[in-house]
Amino acid sequence: MTAPFEVIKKDAATKARLGRLITAHGVVETPTFMPVGTQGTVKAMLPRDLKETGCQIVLGNTYHLYLRPGADLIRELGGLHRFMGWDGPILTDSGGYQVFSLGAMRRIAEEGAHFQSHLDGSTHLLTPEKVVEIQESLGSDIAMVLDECIPHDATREYVRTSTGRTIRWAERSLKVHARKDQLMFGIVQGGMDENLRDWCVREMTPMPFDGFAVGGLGVGEGEELLQSIGAFTVALLPENRPRYLMGVGQPQDILKGVRAGFDMFDCVIPTRNARNGTLFTSQGKLSIKRAEFANDPRPPDENCACYCCRNFSRGYLRHLYMAGEILSSQLNSLHNLYFYHRLMEMCREAIREGRSDFWTRRRDLKPLYD
Amino acid sequence: MTAPFEVIKKDAATKARLGRLITAHGVVETPTFMPVGTQGTVKAMLPRDLKETGCQIVLGNTYHLYLRPGADLIRELGGLHRFMGWDGPILTDSGGYQVFSLGAMRRIAEEGAHFQSHLDGSTHLLTPEKVVEIQESLGSDIAMVLDECIPHDATREYVRTSTGRTIRWAERSLKVHARKDQLMFGIVQGGMDENLRDWCVREMTPMPFDGFAVGGLGVGEGEELLQSIGAFTVALLPENRPRYLMGVGQPQDILKGVRAGFDMFDCVIPTRNARNGTLFTSQGKLSIKRAEFANDPRPPDENCACYCCRNFSRGYLRHLYMAGEILSSQLNSLHNLYFYHRLMEMCREAIREGRSDFWTRRRDLKPLYD
Repeated sequence: MTAPFEVIKKDAATKARLGRLITAHGVVETPTFMPVGTQGTVKAMLPRDLKETGCQIVLGNTYHLYLRPGADLIRELGGLHRFMGWDGPILTDSGGYQVFSLGAMRRIAEEGAHFQSHLDGSTHLLTPEKVVEIQESLGSDIAMVLDECIPHDATREYVRTSTGRTIRWAERSLKVHARKDQLMFGIVQGGMDENLRDWCVREMTPMPFDGFAVGGLGVGEGEELLQSIGAFTVALLPENRPRYLMGVGQPQDILKGVRAGFDMFDCVIPTRNARNGTLFTSQGKLSIKRAEFANDPRPPDENCACYCCRNFSRGYLRHLYMAGEILSSQLNSLHNLYFYHRLMEMCREAIREGRSDFWTRRRDLKPLYD
Repeated sequence: MTAPFEVIKKDAATKARLGRLITAHGVVETPTFMPVGTQGTVKAMLPRDLKETGCQIVLGNTYHLYLRPGADLIRELGGLHRFMGWDGPILTDSGGYQVFSLGAMRRIAEEGAHFQSHLDGSTHLLTPEKVVEIQESLGSDIAMVLDECIPHDATREYVRTSTGRTIRWAERSLKVHARKDQLMFGIVQGGMDENLRDWCVREMTPMPFDGFAVGGLGVGEGEELLQSIGAFTVALLPENRPRYLMGVGQPQDILKGVRAGFDMFDCVIPTRNARNGTLFTSQGKLSIKRAEFANDPRPPDENCACYCCRNFSRGYLRHLYMAGEILSSQLNSLHNLYFYHRLMEMCREAIREGRSDFWTRRRDLKPLYD
């Protein structure tokens, strides 16, 4: 098998890279953004509309799909691609972040993560091996190892203990991973401590992973730490593997991540904000519920070519939101995802064409740099 | 102006007719079904997906749009077509049925219908003239006159009084209707009494309406009265005008309506049932939430060519429904509307090609006749 990842061009002015990630369901051009399909659907999006927004790869949630409808059932119905009608690449997360979010309902031990289902309170144990098995059943193109996502304010001692366990879990995951058509990424933890991040990278990168993610960021540590720890860690990762900044984020965070050398991103922000009536535009965020938009005939973003902006006014979108119409979530999600994917496309163009002005202050994207 | 309606062919075995209704936004082939777009959207449907289901004409609700966002605002934003991004024909109802549904919150008088808004309790008066004005602001292709929808168990005396008022309201409506690019339909009431229906038809049909609707059916009177009063009334209506059976209904009711000579139908059933997890198929209704479908790899209807049936399994649709995903409403609505529109297309084909077996018992549609 050829190397699944290739760096095509490096930006001269920044650490940004243009790359190609080859998966069993097609090629992903990087830098790329992955919309989150928590329960086997990117919320409010038909797969064909998702493709139209420029989406190349979707993220599926192991934790959610394991609980409902179950990985065996999805395998029986032909795997996650067939199940959700998405024939492009899929990355599945490991459930580590979801288990972390359960708070008092989970307990981490050496064997794995004990937790109670948020659906019915039933008790479960996710081990690294089990998480590999689930993702093999789902048949995703990229599987993530089980990790422990550490609170940003954890003690140094806890971070060290936890990170050591995450490293051992990574080794255990590789040992059982059998599916040849599935890539597997390791996850670098280490909290907000550069020494522990460095240690984790040194332990993890000799392992034969197809890519590396940086986890434990965007969890309340603040903008500055997010950027500094992210940039510190990504610079330690091997050049010839894709680098994935998990769970990030706002458009400006993603732009900084690309500049720092990350290739992949995921976040619920574009779709969740859409359902809450917040639209991303080249002029900044727009809260569609505001009264001033009631009779505004303009599209959300006059620079946007998405189906929503080509056909609907802010006045209509405000009406749909105020009336609680499902179409509000559909159109807003479609627009926000188009915005995110177009932003990634602009990053790739900027690297390809060496347009360094993109990374500083392009007038038509000014709000993205604020 | 050429006559807006033309009967192209009459069925030999039944009273069904194939027709063409010409509106300012295009031709409608009849018999036809109109999905209901209560608040300026057919729930959970992008306009382009609606078109793909075979939809020719959409119904808008005067009552709802008058209250929110307001007819003036919609006019200011370019009219209802532009507002909702639907460039095909639109029929707007008169609000009579919605006001009727308000129960204790409304009072009918000679001048019009006094009512309280279901949104904020504010008081309003809808007169026949006001309802014409609102629909002219909305810019629909077909306007309906204000009528009183009578409870099926009203006394004969009340029905007589109310129907007389509905007739006077029809006259008042025509007097003020000015918009030349908008057709206007009268509505025949008369309750469950054939004499009063006959009287109402004789009073109403000499008026220069572009079409006639039969109202006050499908409001709890039962299958038998619905069919008998419907068939009785439609037979009295002029041949050269479109005939519209308001608010009906189930596929088998529509088939009987077409046989009786109706040309147009509307109902919330396909979209509302979709959101409640009921799918219409050539083999009858299917409640997608049932456990037996959890691992069913088949599409909802193996005889259906809609986007939903081409791409998704019953197992997936059940999962979406159980997980409360928005995509459940989207896919189920898309399928049900495709089913309804395909059924109307089959009616038109049957009339065009003289296939009388369609009206009796075609094996592949058996459940529709039960």
